[in-house]
Formats: sequence, C-alpha cells, structure tokens
Amino acid sequence: MDNIKRVEPRTLSGFMELLPQDQIKFNEMLDIIKKTYELYGFLPEETPIIESSEVLLAKAGGETEKQIYSFKKGDKDLSLRFDLTVPLAKYVAQYYNDLTFPYRRYQIGKVFRGERAQKGRYREFYQCDIDIIGDGKLSIINDAEIPSVIYTTFKNLGFDNFIIKINNRKILNGLFDELNISEKKTEILIIIDKLEKIGMNAVKEELAKLELSKVTIDKIEEFFKIDGTTDEKIEKLSKLGFNSSVFNEGLNELKEVIKYVRLFKVNEKNFTVDLTIARGLDYYTGTVYETNLVGYESIGSICSGGRYENLAGYYTKKNLPGVGMSIGFTRLFYNLKELGLLNTSRKSISKVGIITMDTEYEEAVQISNLLRDNSIPNEIYKENSKIKSKFTYANSLDIPYVIIIGEEEKEKGLFTLKNMTTGDQKMLSSQEILDVLK
Amino acid sequence: MDNIKRVEPRTLSGFMELLPQDQIKFNEMLDIIKKTYELYGFLPEETPIIESSEVLLAKAGGETEKQIYSFKKGDKDLSLRFDLTVPLAKYVAQYYNDLTFPYRRYQIGKVFRGERAQKGRYREFYQCDIDIIGDGKLSIINDAEIPSVIYTTFKNLGFDNFIIKINNRKILNGLFDELNISEKKTEILIIIDKLEKIGMNAVKEELAKLELSKVTIDKIEEFFKIDGTTDEKIEKLSKLGFNSSVFNEGLNELKEVIKYVRLFKVNEKNFTVDLTIARGLDYYTGTVYETNLVGYESIGSICSGGRYENLAGYYTKKNLPGVGMSIGFTRLFYNLKELGLLNTSRKSISKVGIITMDTEYEEAVQISNLLRDNSIPNEIYKENSKIKSKFTYANSLDIPYVIIIGEEEKEKGLFTLKNMTTGDQKMLSSQEILDVLK
Repeated sequence: MDNIKRVEPRTLSGFMELLPQDQIKFNEMLDIIKKTYELYGFLPEETPIIESSEVLLAKAGGETEKQIYSFKKGDKDLSLRFDLTVPLAKYVAQYYNDLTFPYRRYQIGKVFRGERAQKGRYREFYQCDIDIIGDGKLSIINDAEIPSVIYTTFKNLGFDNFIIKINNRKILNGLFDELNISEKKTEILIIIDKLEKIGMNAVKEELAKLELSKVTIDKIEEFFKIDGTTDEKIEKLSKLGFNSSVFNEGLNELKEVIKYVRLFKVNEKNFTVDLTIARGLDYYTGTVYETNLVGYESIGSICSGGRYENLAGYYTKKNLPGVGMSIGFTRLFYNLKELGLLNTSRKSISKVGIITMDTEYEEAVQISNLLRDNSIPNEIYKENSKIKSKFTYANSLDIPYVIIIGEEEKEKGLFTLKNMTTGDQKMLSSQEILDVLK
Repeated sequence: MDNIKRVEPRTLSGFMELLPQDQIKFNEMLDIIKKTYELYGFLPEETPIIESSEVLLAKAGGETEKQIYSFKKGDKDLSLRFDLTVPLAKYVAQYYNDLTFPYRRYQIGKVFRGERAQKGRYREFYQCDIDIIGDGKLSIINDAEIPSVIYTTFKNLGFDNFIIKINNRKILNGLFDELNISEKKTEILIIIDKLEKIGMNAVKEELAKLELSKVTIDKIEEFFKIDGTTDEKIEKLSKLGFNSSVFNEGLNELKEVIKYVRLFKVNEKNFTVDLTIARGLDYYTGTVYETNLVGYESIGSICSGGRYENLAGYYTKKNLPGVGMSIGFTRLFYNLKELGLLNTSRKSISKVGIITMDTEYEEAVQISNLLRDNSIPNEIYKENSKIKSKFTYANSLDIPYVIIIGEEEKEKGLFTLKNMTTGDQKMLSSQEILDVLK
C-alpha cells in the first residue's frame, strides 16, 4: 500500500460536516422539527435531489438561476434542487389526481445553491418546509395555523425569546393603490425592506430618488411608523380610512389571522404585526411571515413564509393557492453554534458501555442483548487493551454508565454498574441493572 | 397567468418519488433502521452530497467512475457521492485526531449513480451503512456484531424469513494458495459468484477455460460442494487438512465469528456459512456477508458487507481496519412493494381530524391544541365546504378518528368523537376524548 499517491482528505468550503457530538445535536433538532410538523398532521414528502433542468427552471431566472448546480449526463440537462417549493409545485401538479386537498405536506431535505462562499452561507443546506395547498381555494384560517406551527416548533426546540412578524402583502399593495404609486411598488418595497438596517431618514432619501412627491413620502412614513401593541396597530390601520378594496381585504385577513393565532395559543410576546415585512419573492400575495431571535436580529429571519395565490402555474392550469413556511436549518444551526446558543449535547448514543477484564465476551454479549431488548442503547468495548484504555474510550465518549465484568462478577453471575458522572459503582444482577437504567 | 408557457411536470426515470401513503411507510422503515443502529450505540455521521472530484475519486476507476455524476462549478471539479464508504474514509482520515477509536458510525443518506435505467435500479438511492473502524487493529468480535445488527434490523422491520450468509475471504484465498492458483483468483471468484445462477456443471466448464487442470477443478468442486449445517460445514473445512496459513487463519476467524453470532442470539435459521460469497469489491479481506430474503433470492442481496484491512489508504498512512455493512434501501423498498411484501400503511399522519358544522373554529382550535399538547397528531378541516366534503377528506386520508363540532356540542361544551373504523360515535368531554385516544 505504500507507494500510493495520497490525496489530502478535505471537505469543500460552504459544505457543513460535523463531528459526532454536533451531529447528534443536529439530528436531535431536525427530529424535533419533524415531530412537531407531524403533530399538525402534515404528510411527509420527498422529491429527488436531481431533476430535469427544464422542469426545475421553468420559472427560475436572475440570481437564483446563476446559483444552480446544473450539468449534463448523457444527453440530459440536469439540475440539483435549489429549494423545496419548486419541487412541491411539480409534485402537486404531477400527482394532482392522487392527492387529497387541502394537501398538507412537509419536506425536510438538502437543497443546493452555488453562492459565493461566505461565513454562515452554505452551498448545501437543509430546508424544513411545510405548506398547505388548496384546490382552487384555501381558507384564511390556514394562514393562522402556520405561525402556530412556527411557535410550537421553536418552543419545542427550546427557544423562548423569538418573535414571529406577520404582515399582509395586500395591505402594502393597498397603500400603494391609495397613493397611486403602484407602478413603483417593487422599488419601494426594496427600500422599505432596509428600514430596520438604515433607518427612516435614509429610507426617505432613497424614496425621494424614485421621484415621489413629498406628500407621498410623508404618507409612506406615516404608514410605516404605525406602532404600539398588535391591537393598536390594527386599530391605527383601520383609522387610516383608505378606500382601496385591496387594502381593506388585507386588513380583514390580518385581523382574522391575528384572532386565530391567539386561539392557537401563540404567546402574545412571540408574535407581532410588522408592516415592513414584504418578503422578497414575487409570489407571495397575502399573509407573510418572518421570525427573529430577539437580541440576534443580525442573523436574519430564521423562519419565513407566506401565502401565494398560485403555486404551480408553470406546470398546470389548475389554480392551487397555498400558504407555507421554511426553516433554513443548516444556517440556523451554524448561527446557534457561533452564538453559543446550542445546549451542549451528549457525545455518545450509547447509554451504557460494557467493559470486560479479559477477552472472553460471553457475559458482555448477554447483558448487551438484554439491554438492547429493553431499548437501552449500549455497546461492548471489544479490543484487547489495557483496562485503562477501555475506560478512556468510555470517558472520551462521555458514556453515562459503564458495566464492568471481571472474575468476581463472572463467578457471582453479577455485573458492576458504574455511574460515570458520580463515580458510584455497585455489583448488581442484570434485573437490578435494568431497574436502575430504565 | 394564462399566456404562460407550461412545462410538463415529471420526475426523471431512475428517481424514486412516492405518494404520501408509501412515503409514510418508507420513512417508518428508515426510522426503524436508524433506531436499531442506535441501539448498538453507532454514532450518526453526515457527509456532504457534493465533494471535490479529486477527493472522491482518489481510488475509483472502471465501471464506478463512469457512473459518477461529475460537473464543474466555477473552476471546481465536483462529484456527487456514489457510496458512503469513500466519504467515511475521507472523514476518518480528516478528523482522525478528533475521533475516538474504535469509531462506530452509521450514515443513512442518498448516493448517486448514473447507471443505465432498468427496473428496480435507481440513480438516486438511500444507503444505510454501519461501520466500525479500528486504529491499527480491530478485534474479530466486531465481525460477529455486524450480523447481529443485520439480524435485529430485519427482525425490527418485520421480517422473519431471511438468511445472512457469512464467509471469510481468507478461506478462499487459502484454497487458491493450497491449489497454487492464486494468480487466477479474481477470474475464479467471478465464476464462482455465478454458481447459484448457472449451477456447478456450467461453473466447471468456465473454470476449464482458465486452463485449470482437472484435478484442480475437482478440488474446487469438492470445496464448493461442502454442505450441511453450519457446524458440519466448519468441520468439513477443518478436515480438508489444508496447510495454507491464510486458510487456517480464515477458518479460525470464521469459527470465532460463528461462536459470537450465536451468543448475540442471531437465530440459527437466519444465518449460514456460504463458501461461495466473495463480494465483488476488491477491498474486503476477511469476513464477508450477504443477506437474502428466502424465496426471493432473485432480488439479490438486501444487505452486504465485510471486513477490510485498510479503509483510508488513499488519504492517510494510518492503518485503519474496519468492518461494516450496507442496506440499499431504495431498491429494497421498491422490491418489497413489487412483491407485495410491504405491510399496508396508514395514509395519514393525523390520528384525529376535526370537523366543524359552521365556519367558526374556536372550539376546534381548542381541542386541537389540547390533543397536540398530549402528543396526538391531529388537524382541523378548515375549508368552508359541505359537511359531506369534510368527511370525504377524512375518509380519503383514512384518518382513524374524527371529532365533530356542531351547535349541540358547542352548547354543551362537548365534542362528538367518531371512530371511523367502527362507525361508533359518542358525545364526550375533552378529558374523555383524551382518555379514549391515549
């Protein structure tokens, strides 16, 4: 083997790869997300990572398209999925006749974007999506269920101090209708999106560059300065006296969403109405959400989504409205780790390590079988090493309990159980060990 | 939206995409595999799907290399992983100093091979791998633990009639040593591999083409005709009286593996010694395994693996012996479905569907919250449809229980719980509902 040409083992930058302790934590968190989604009855969906470029890029364009991993294999143009929404649209259009609507699904999986490498930006990352797709129509109550899922998910992940920001695109569109500036809506929303970062004065300066009148800019400022409690904001919106029917539709939807968000027992401190939230993507048409970790706003929204009028227009004539949200999990995990907000996790899956004093493993295998039959993860140390190395193994994996089998134990048919945290140890029967560990 | 150019929604051939009912089953089975692996204390590992081609293809060549999805992004040569073993080798070499040895890990994830499309062959498929990697050495008892994991996994998946075939490459190498035909070993093994398919006479004809003497061919036949119980086979092997030290080392290893496989309580009917098993891959050097579903041998091995002398020679000078196995899960799932061997599964994640007679959902949300707080997956039907449509939804998803909320229920503060299997229904308090459902 030793005139071999060796390659340096390395992982590409922008690709997350974890050591076991972090991987255990990562998987535990993903599992909590999955279980929470399932508590709401969402069905699992799994689409391929590779799709035909023609299908995947039916809509894409601009920045997104540049980031996509596309390649040829044989005569086929293939691409790696860059989100889970386009595959959802494809899936719903393709299996329309086999699905029950409203179709409620989650998908947790990796997506791929060849972005410029940058701290905390990944090229291969997990998204954890839920969506509810209606056939022709979808009740507004669904828009209130999504914040409930977000709330329960982050509570179950152990967070307390986060805030779900809720808005409705129709309210924004109505404002622009009312001010007769709808044709500049996109540019204005891009500027408003920076409000939190650059402040109102800078926003006004940028708006002025769009050749908006001072009166209009003042109206915009008045609107975006609406503050107070959730109910106060809604009252102030009602009192604007706008005639725009779109505005009033959006306001009524927002009221209904807030009413049901409360019924869903989302804590008052964990949600708010935020009129500046628009979400960049074109396809949101009603309710929109962003979620921030309070005190860590700089990491951006950790969970976003909204309502769209038509999911799958590029694949089918059927009108399929939907509402959903997505957690960018890989980035979230990275940020939590960087910020020191990850609760430390166990380093081993095994709850028990089994160590023998000699190289005969009969009793070790027997107790291992018994523990496994009782759903207690465990492993036997099977290398012929000094007893110290055996304990070093258990220690470096932080295995909580060690069972020691020596001559005396074999004679008596007993096992010594050592609690590695307290150092206590006792010679016990296998049944007594089960009682302690269960 | 309607002068849009539409693309036909479709999934590439060779890529599995399931409807919800099958996806639920698929996920349940993957979850059982994962939980079983964890019962043995294996640590989770997750490597990227995209790796640098130079790293991933350090060893590859021939057929495998042709199948690999490789492409350029910017100036980087990238490839999609085609198995989980090469990434494991990379991982262990790269993080050698951070890992505790023996390093016991599982990885469950998708791998990619651009094979010719063919029934039951997938280009994107799950592998479920476990491996135990030693630092310089690794006890033979580990080779007995792998069949135990295979056994427990398939038992937990609900199988009873499967057989784990165990052999040792050293026994085969020793045979060839003994007969002085080691230089033709690869060709001979390729022929022997076909024994089950083409029979002994055809095998002998092919061996003759390798210009082996009749005496040699007779000896080969004698060897591969060894039959009987596991113990009888081992006894017959001992009685061959071979002098080859490699042969005797292999035989001793096999004896030790069989002894411990029994201690691990693998049922006698679920394992056997099969001298014809060699495994195609070059790198197996000792114990090898294949697993068949009895009566369905034509689908091939559903779980294979073995012992290798050196995992990561292309990345490091460190000697890292290992033993492991892999389940090709996507193909297995496909075959089970084709053969009608998948137990039918539930079509819904929700255990309870909640239906209201009007469009006020206060009580619905309250009971939904309560059920969720008690870990009972449920969902509210929120569309304003006829009551019949609401039941159609619950029926087509086979939701086991429906809670109905009408005027009478609202007045009394009760809920009607209907068992959708029996048709029984009763008006109950929320606490009584919990008692029934838990």
